[in-house]
Amino acid sequence: MKPVKVGLLGFGTVGCGVIKAFQKNGELLARRLGKPVELVRIADLDIVTPRSIQVDRTLLTTDVAAILDDPAIDIVIELIGGYEPARTFVLRAIANGKHVVTANKALLALHGEEIFKAAEQAGVDVMYEASVGGGIPIISAIKENLGVNNFQSVFGILNGTCNYILTRMTDEGEDFAKVLADAQTRGYAEADPTFDVEGIDTAHKLSLLSSLCFGTRVDFKSIYTEGITRITALDIQYAREFGYKFKLLAIGKRVNGEIEVRVHPTMLPLDHPLANVDGVFNGVRLMGDFVGPVMLYGYGAGMDATASAVMGDVMAITRNLRAGISTRTPAMGCPQASVEHLAVKPMEELVSSYYLRVFAKDQPGVLAQIAGVLGKYRISIESMIQPLRHAADAVPIVLMTHEAVERDVRAALAEIDQLDAIRDKSLFVRIEEGLE
Amino acid sequence: MKPVKVGLLGFGTVGCGVIKAFQKNGELLARRLGKPVELVRIADLDIVTPRSIQVDRTLLTTDVAAILDDPAIDIVIELIGGYEPARTFVLRAIANGKHVVTANKALLALHGEEIFKAAEQAGVDVMYEASVGGGIPIISAIKENLGVNNFQSVFGILNGTCNYILTRMTDEGEDFAKVLADAQTRGYAEADPTFDVEGIDTAHKLSLLSSLCFGTRVDFKSIYTEGITRITALDIQYAREFGYKFKLLAIGKRVNGEIEVRVHPTMLPLDHPLANVDGVFNGVRLMGDFVGPVMLYGYGAGMDATASAVMGDVMAITRNLRAGISTRTPAMGCPQASVEHLAVKPMEELVSSYYLRVFAKDQPGVLAQIAGVLGKYRISIESMIQPLRHAADAVPIVLMTHEAVERDVRAALAEIDQLDAIRDKSLFVRIEEGLE
Repeated sequence: MKPVKVGLLGFGTVGCGVIKAFQKNGELLARRLGKPVELVRIADLDIVTPRSIQVDRTLLTTDVAAILDDPAIDIVIELIGGYEPARTFVLRAIANGKHVVTANKALLALHGEEIFKAAEQAGVDVMYEASVGGGIPIISAIKENLGVNNFQSVFGILNGTCNYILTRMTDEGEDFAKVLADAQTRGYAEADPTFDVEGIDTAHKLSLLSSLCFGTRVDFKSIYTEGITRITALDIQYAREFGYKFKLLAIGKRVNGEIEVRVHPTMLPLDHPLANVDGVFNGVRLMGDFVGPVMLYGYGAGMDATASAVMGDVMAITRNLRAGISTRTPAMGCPQASVEHLAVKPMEELVSSYYLRVFAKDQPGVLAQIAGVLGKYRISIESMIQPLRHAADAVPIVLMTHEAVERDVRAALAEIDQLDAIRDKSLFVRIEEGLE
Repeated sequence: MKPVKVGLLGFGTVGCGVIKAFQKNGELLARRLGKPVELVRIADLDIVTPRSIQVDRTLLTTDVAAILDDPAIDIVIELIGGYEPARTFVLRAIANGKHVVTANKALLALHGEEIFKAAEQAGVDVMYEASVGGGIPIISAIKENLGVNNFQSVFGILNGTCNYILTRMTDEGEDFAKVLADAQTRGYAEADPTFDVEGIDTAHKLSLLSSLCFGTRVDFKSIYTEGITRITALDIQYAREFGYKFKLLAIGKRVNGEIEVRVHPTMLPLDHPLANVDGVFNGVRLMGDFVGPVMLYGYGAGMDATASAVMGDVMAITRNLRAGISTRTPAMGCPQASVEHLAVKPMEELVSSYYLRVFAKDQPGVLAQIAGVLGKYRISIESMIQPLRHAADAVPIVLMTHEAVERDVRAALAEIDQLDAIRDKSLFVRIEEGLE
């Protein structure tokens, strides 16, 4: 039987995982699929530096045209990452009638519409299970198995670097900078960690998940994105005293015909299912009107886990090719013409409960002043602690609010930060109590 | 566009969930699929008793032939349950060229080979996502997305009734019989709970999961099956003192070319991911050679969650029909000719650590006697407690062993139970420490 031929763009870590999967489990694949799948070409600018695996050197090329323009190749796996030249290569593969498998969330978050429309027109598949949650089959679950559901919400811990850092800050009581430096030494964080620790990578992934769950186009720029760099070990400790844990959470919700899409440090109750997704693990929790809550959990990154997701997509396309069809399931789970344009709820209108941390001079009347400002902005206090540990002449005051409007919280803290007694910029963190 | 026509066998709880899904989300389905799907006929022996939903009464019939033999019907949903007449109906639907969606684990565990072979010959699909884990998309994950993996193990909490009972026994310190009676009153357990509490339902589900994971036929009778009826509140309390929790676990492992397939009460460390799957929730944890550990979690039963899974399968078949194909993914994830016949490892050869609970007369020398017997059978003790609470003149002695062979443990306990000082039949419970 004529094998399906695959070309790979990108001979990096995940690329090596994919090559390993072909080498180790290629026969298993052929047996399961009833059709052999062959990796026939691997392109990268650098094909000289030794990698973690052995590879038949005749497969290697520095010329992407040897993959993109070879009519014998059925499927192109794009593991280059970033916006360009990935976008150009993917569009060229599509134009040449090739199916595409990619792990590139940045590319799809910004250019998904262009790419998906091009694929629909060309009648080819673009699959991207590996772009969110590593090996966790979350994209397929939303598009296929759970497709009858109207989704109310999607919550995700989607960045292993941030989760590793927050977990170590929680377990060891260390501050961000120190844990980050150590994570960099161990290879859990990049030399330039901006995309991870500022929440941008998580926002790319949320863009894809919320587009799928809510059947809408999400403009990446409309996602509120806040990283974990301002969280201190003290905040983590205070949160625990209130019964909460810090996570960098991707949150998508459908509320009255609008969507909330936001990425920020979030305090979760200790018994929240996502609160125990620690270290480099990722977890995603969906709420559908039929299935109720569903959670998926696994490695969010890494050579082998990501390769597992890439190969799942290769299998899906191979099953289509074997049956002589394509685009059985559209890239967004529905035809492009059915994709909606739901409005994104402005962040200032968010209703949430909040953790507020203020550093103030230890003098009588400060708390009354703070409470006065909060009251003026209709923010009511649920509980308060004045922890013992504090720096120099300033004492921390930590408050948990009842539900309030984000606009009011920002205005109140701006006013509080103007008070004479305040010693440092105040911090507020959103709390996600519920499981709805 | 010509709609896909669906006939439903079984107007019970899950049947009503499916009808509700068509009513509430039928338009959403059509939009996502690019093709309408219609429920055109509902058959049940009883179409008179009022149900939880309103239904167009012209759809109802007491004659299954109106579905099975109607050439206009594309998909038959079988929600009758049990072995017969479900088997006959499913085979007749297949013979008539209809695709089948079923939630019937009992049927497939016993007659899966016959049904899957008939479907392959007839060129139709038989899908059964709803048969394991309610709305959790575990079957599709194994067959499709994670298909590149060699699976080492599958662990599942797959029966909501047992998990509910064990969770309440754990939380409230009540004994089995009392919690079961209350669960029956609340509708969480059947009037005849045998299939649930004796582990048979879980074994049906394990049969399907292990067949899929290991690509083999699992003879249902070869699954070691032990229920939760002998577990007492005391055992649960002692387990907690050692840092463990009781779960009825389905365990499938591939070990040296053989498989272990067993269902029994299992002690899990409190920090094991499955230890926190409580109440009516189900959880499944897979270990693959590429993806590593993956866990899926959600409602394991119930009208709406199960309907979500049924409708996911209806969607998959509709996507095939729209593309003009069928049997894109075979029922076992691979062609029937590729299914293996791996040997099942005899239970006596199991290597595990064990929890042992003995009730003995409170007299000197008893422990030495017990330790002597264990030593004779090469069973070494990791730790021991003599809890304070005890009944009448007998004291409980609770031991945790290092790894031992099941045959030796059974022989040792049989010998211990012959000792003069022993007051009750001893209990042993297998421990699952690892995450491999």
